[in-house]
Amino acid sequence: MNKHGKNIFYAQSGGVTAVINASACGVIETARKHPEQFGKIYVGKNGILGALHEELIDTSLETPEAIRALYHTPGGAFGSCRYKLKSIEQNRAEYERLIDVFKAHDIGTFFYNGGGDSQDTANKVAEFSQSLGLDIRCIGVPKTVDNDLPFTDNCPGFGSVAKYIAVSTREASLDVASMAQTSTKVFILEVMGRHAGWIAAAGALAQDTDKNMHAPHIILFPEIAFDQAKFLAKVSATVKQHGYCVVVASEGVKDLDGKFLAETGTKDAFGHAQLGGVAPYLAGLVQSELKLKYHWAVADYLQRAARHLSSTVDVEQAYALGKAAVEFAIENKTAIMPTIVRDSTTPYKWSIGEVALSKVANVENKLPKDFIDQEGFGITEACRAYLLPLIQGEAYPPYVNGMPDYVVLKNQLINKKLPAFEQKK
Amino acid sequence: MNKHGKNIFYAQSGGVTAVINASACGVIETARKHPEQFGKIYVGKNGILGALHEELIDTSLETPEAIRALYHTPGGAFGSCRYKLKSIEQNRAEYERLIDVFKAHDIGTFFYNGGGDSQDTANKVAEFSQSLGLDIRCIGVPKTVDNDLPFTDNCPGFGSVAKYIAVSTREASLDVASMAQTSTKVFILEVMGRHAGWIAAAGALAQDTDKNMHAPHIILFPEIAFDQAKFLAKVSATVKQHGYCVVVASEGVKDLDGKFLAETGTKDAFGHAQLGGVAPYLAGLVQSELKLKYHWAVADYLQRAARHLSSTVDVEQAYALGKAAVEFAIENKTAIMPTIVRDSTTPYKWSIGEVALSKVANVENKLPKDFIDQEGFGITEACRAYLLPLIQGEAYPPYVNGMPDYVVLKNQLINKKLPAFEQKK
Repeated sequence: MNKHGKNIFYAQSGGVTAVINASACGVIETARKHPEQFGKIYVGKNGILGALHEELIDTSLETPEAIRALYHTPGGAFGSCRYKLKSIEQNRAEYERLIDVFKAHDIGTFFYNGGGDSQDTANKVAEFSQSLGLDIRCIGVPKTVDNDLPFTDNCPGFGSVAKYIAVSTREASLDVASMAQTSTKVFILEVMGRHAGWIAAAGALAQDTDKNMHAPHIILFPEIAFDQAKFLAKVSATVKQHGYCVVVASEGVKDLDGKFLAETGTKDAFGHAQLGGVAPYLAGLVQSELKLKYHWAVADYLQRAARHLSSTVDVEQAYALGKAAVEFAIENKTAIMPTIVRDSTTPYKWSIGEVALSKVANVENKLPKDFIDQEGFGITEACRAYLLPLIQGEAYPPYVNGMPDYVVLKNQLINKKLPAFEQKK
Repeated sequence: MNKHGKNIFYAQSGGVTAVINASACGVIETARKHPEQFGKIYVGKNGILGALHEELIDTSLETPEAIRALYHTPGGAFGSCRYKLKSIEQNRAEYERLIDVFKAHDIGTFFYNGGGDSQDTANKVAEFSQSLGLDIRCIGVPKTVDNDLPFTDNCPGFGSVAKYIAVSTREASLDVASMAQTSTKVFILEVMGRHAGWIAAAGALAQDTDKNMHAPHIILFPEIAFDQAKFLAKVSATVKQHGYCVVVASEGVKDLDGKFLAETGTKDAFGHAQLGGVAPYLAGLVQSELKLKYHWAVADYLQRAARHLSSTVDVEQAYALGKAAVEFAIENKTAIMPTIVRDSTTPYKWSIGEVALSKVANVENKLPKDFIDQEGFGITEACRAYLLPLIQGEAYPPYVNGMPDYVVLKNQLINKKLPAFEQKK
């Protein structure tokens, strides 16, 4: 082995997506092609916790077919976690533990597949290992359905959610339109995106005015404060004009005081805080103020796990970013993240770029002002032009006996070499 | 024209499905092939209301391509309605009006595409027209996602919902499994089926024990009274064993007193009745009693409109039933409904049968006792064997620019010939 013949440690972080495993597939397949560069490919069980607890999955025990199947399997095949490392000053012991585990298992490359927090962690690990004079390359792999990472044109995971929400909105709208004469007049779909309205914006792709498909009529973005009177007036006018009204609402919609609508302090019969989201809240308004019959849906995990309807562009980019991360490692780069660069919108062309992790960390990319229309209930043509390329192509998974043939890996751990780690509370 | 050269009146009724338009496609394409038998094919705008209000859509203005596109378009392309005709004794005027409209537009065949109520209506219209000595053939076309019609092995619409719920449950379960270590431990998916647990049962098809896929761990059926202590104990034990728990709950789950869980009288901060369904109710229980982190989803219209994931068997049966209805008319049958007959389960073989409408009307086909396991939280092998054939095949719609190419028809009305109808309130 040369100096880069050391092992790899890869971990998935934060909320999983329909295509994070495609990035894992890109990392593992590419690294396997370079045995002169890399030794074993270990993956953290449940993300970075796997490193802290020295629970390392040995991917060499997985067949090439199983690794290939990651390409079409949603969720996080090795387990993910919601766990943010504190700053080095606040919890140096965690960083030391990571380095101890990396040393014990001869890790030369750390790939961290996650959102903004994870890129921040990867950056800190890079700084810490450099400060110790260690040769550990730390490379981020972007992932988030929220599409809120900066310096990349888009984030893997988002395109597939966007497609799912656009298609589901179009389908449900056809349903509501059929029923409106005697039944449901208002349909509300709650979608993810607590801080940024990218997913809600994708609902607008359900529209096709050439075909007389006008729904959704109202999109509620977290970037626009919710004005109850304006909303109700728009619902009412839409029902008068079209006979029905379809609303796509981000879970992160806030009222004029900056409070989440989903947390408006409602209580159930037992006095428990009400657990409903934005959709039932809005449905309540529509019923009490407008006396209109409603239906509502909350897509929740269904939307980000919907690999059955992933966009081909999204899956290909997720894979390419995993592959690029390995190539960066081969080039001995560190503290870096591969990005998606949009070379052209029409026709859509993209390539892989790169950005220093120090720049990415903790910057949130919200929907630009010029992507939301003047009324505040829809998207602009600029936004549509941005979004459309990301939902192109149908990357269907294989099916067996009527069901998608998703893989569950063996996930066998290697033997521990270190004493147990006591996490600070 | 011979005596059967008269026009057709077709109407869609009740909640629409992903494949009711495939039945319409079967009716229209088959009737168009028999100009010697049929004149124009009219469709009621918004179902039977179209007949009462003399709003008849002229399908001859739609191209063959548009009619073909109904095969892959969800919702009700002509509009549906929730409107049940009363008995002839209670509202003879409505039946007289139907006959007046049928006479005015030379209708010789009435196809009514709907669930139990609609078959009842079709039967009454058949009886009424016969009592007047009129030659109007009344033929039902079955449709309901609830799968609760008797005398047919299954109902078109159900297979596609079943597939959607099974796939979505598998996908969301992979997501939850990834997150459970540090985040969501209980995921609850609320599905349709107010009186019968067929759709909830389909959630079990997400399981593949050979692959170590055990979710969903709990299914709540409307047929089994909800026992809170037993439910919570099962959730708790499942989280201990697997690290997480996935629940598929029918919207129609009732408590031991026979009251819907979704209507347990909870109120929001304004004193409005809470609009949540079963899923947020159960999530509240899980949080307050077990202190476990939860997520919940309500699929609502998304499930019954999800033509993007329809089962091939379902779409083919929906079309075949529409076609068979026309063939029955050609054979001069009346007061009859084509059915799906299961000739064999392994390998799955089906054919078209028939049943008298008088038998179908108002009988509800619930999940048989031997389809629910002893514990009451899962399905039996008999149920699995019944369900699996119905979700076979992926009947994907065509896509254009990343979105399914659903059709919106012209739906042009013909000129009225009668005075307006005053509906009794």
